[in-house]
Amino acid sequence: MSAPRWKKALERALDANKKSVVYSFATVDLSVQPPQPRTRTVVHRGFVEPKGASHPLLLTTTDIRAAKVHELNGDANAELAWWIEGTQEQWRLASRAYIVPHPEHAEQVKIPQALFDIADGHFWEKERERIFNSLSGHMRASWARPAPGSPIPSYDEGKKWPEKLGGLGEGKNEEEEQVIRKAFENFALVVLQPFAVDYVELGVVPNQRTKFTQAGETWKEVIVVP
Amino acid sequence: MSAPRWKKALERALDANKKSVVYSFATVDLSVQPPQPRTRTVVHRGFVEPKGASHPLLLTTTDIRAAKVHELNGDANAELAWWIEGTQEQWRLASRAYIVPHPEHAEQVKIPQALFDIADGHFWEKERERIFNSLSGHMRASWARPAPGSPIPSYDEGKKWPEKLGGLGEGKNEEEEQVIRKAFENFALVVLQPFAVDYVELGVVPNQRTKFTQAGETWKEVIVVP
Repeated sequence: MSAPRWKKALERALDANKKSVVYSFATVDLSVQPPQPRTRTVVHRGFVEPKGASHPLLLTTTDIRAAKVHELNGDANAELAWWIEGTQEQWRLASRAYIVPHPEHAEQVKIPQALFDIADGHFWEKERERIFNSLSGHMRASWARPAPGSPIPSYDEGKKWPEKLGGLGEGKNEEEEQVIRKAFENFALVVLQPFAVDYVELGVVPNQRTKFTQAGETWKEVIVVP
Repeated sequence: MSAPRWKKALERALDANKKSVVYSFATVDLSVQPPQPRTRTVVHRGFVEPKGASHPLLLTTTDIRAAKVHELNGDANAELAWWIEGTQEQWRLASRAYIVPHPEHAEQVKIPQALFDIADGHFWEKERERIFNSLSGHMRASWARPAPGSPIPSYDEGKKWPEKLGGLGEGKNEEEEQVIRKAFENFALVVLQPFAVDYVELGVVPNQRTKFTQAGETWKEVIVVP
């Protein structure tokens, strides 16, 4: 299947705007009434199209202990808003969002079987390892801290935590290797499967806006007022 | 009342990063089951502290016909995520979000009486007019278009819409003045009243994170793991 038109346009925009690597990631906290909106900034870790997946997927990462994991376990719907400053484009991607955790945490997290079955279930754990090893030492060290959001007595507490960590197998000794494995255990992928894309082009006159909606194996495209 | 510490820190960050003028604005669409997350990028239009308001307010703008207005009428909770690239800070502001429409639309929109009573109800309409007149002609023209998100036959349709509009009273003739008044009628303020602020500083080592929670007239501050 060839890539949908929105994906080609988004890739072109990202190629032309190398600094536009973050987007906001919104979820709903259904554990409170009324349900509350939550959003945070995350880093785009690339597209992935594993054999057997019918649509493009986006990747970002999380700490398995982060609030967004609980929110996505409540309901897997998320929306991304990506502002591309250089070309004045706004991308909104309504997506299903799935967590790919360390196998240790597989029981805590709901992942649809169809997604995990891709590449006989081996694809995702390899991908998780590849991305963990490709990130900065500072990022890796962040997953070896106590649970994000938990109270500490002062900012100085942070001096007790590792500042950088090597990739898997790069620990200087067994003690450091254990810390790396702990970080790798807390590290999870977030796999995003867009089902509706809203593309606004404010850099052209007149402004343009196009809505793409997944319809089975293809995408329906509608031109709308920006 | 002196400004809360988070507001001083946010203003300092914005002063040091003049380009960081946009944030993402998340709401929940309660009209579907399960409720869906929605988020988009908006432009910060400044802080405002009208006489009688007990806490800092932020302003942004919207078209009264936009989906976010309906979402906020369902529930006024919003969350903002503001990524400040230059100093690697993330601000998340859980907020109540209120629409200040043209008086023509006052019946369509729920606004808490206490907020509207500030400055005897005159403050907000003056503020709405001040901001409308201060924006670019391109922005003003955007509110004179057909309803945002409505389908059109082709991008060429946009050539029928005004490209720029003057402020109120700046129309070249009565016809143009009517178009300006129409844009002003569709234009609305969004007033944001934060009640919980999550401030992550990734530009310092060790990273720091502080949560501020409104507690009556003051703010409770807790240091947490980033």
